[in-house]
Amino acid sequence: MTTAPKPINFAEKMATFDALWSPRVIAEMNDYQFKIAKVEGEFVWHQHADTDEVFIVLDGELTIHFRESTVQLRAGEMYVVPRGVEHKPAAERLCQILLVEPRGVVNTGDAGGELTADRDVWA
Amino acid sequence: MTTAPKPINFAEKMATFDALWSPRVIAEMNDYQFKIAKVEGEFVWHQHADTDEVFIVLDGELTIHFRESTVQLRAGEMYVVPRGVEHKPAAERLCQILLVEPRGVVNTGDAGGELTADRDVWA
Repeated sequence: MTTAPKPINFAEKMATFDALWSPRVIAEMNDYQFKIAKVEGEFVWHQHADTDEVFIVLDGELTIHFRESTVQLRAGEMYVVPRGVEHKPAAERLCQILLVEPRGVVNTGDAGGELTADRDVWA
Repeated sequence: MTTAPKPINFAEKMATFDALWSPRVIAEMNDYQFKIAKVEGEFVWHQHADTDEVFIVLDGELTIHFRESTVQLRAGEMYVVPRGVEHKPAAERLCQILLVEPRGVVNTGDAGGELTADRDVWA
């Protein structure tokens, strides 16, 4: 190792962008990516047919709506949305989240639309 | 979905055990596991030949020693140890961490020894 290794600091990475619902990659592990996002308001209903998706709340509160239930997450909590399950993330106030999913996952899954973000944008 | 989905709360899961260097699974995503651990003192030098390994610090401070450098992580920071890289985690005081790695990874990697923990023990 030729350069001193540096920690990846969530708050520092969050400070590099303002866009909502626009995940930024901060790390890769094997073929998985760790992405941070700022969210507020309601996202679109969508699903990921081929992969589970992890949501970890770093700051604020996140609601994940399912067709027949919801789950509320606060800072220090996580949830795994199973593959193929329709969900709609939402936050009443600005919320900071960490996502873990395979490289190449599109944020809007099967839904597409104007909230679809570029993939592989790094913070 | 027949039962109300529940968030996975890191602090609640941490409260279910005291053993040091003994990771507990709290969630699975595809073929990956999220594990929490309490650590204090020095672990053993080891490597994982087949996988990267993610360390996220939830509380306290963690030092990861490499053969020619070290990285210091505090709460809100993460690091990805690349596959095949020898490392030795250590913490001067009690530290709480979240690990992400493929199902089946042994905590002591290639090193073995008395700190080797059972796999797939859930919190």
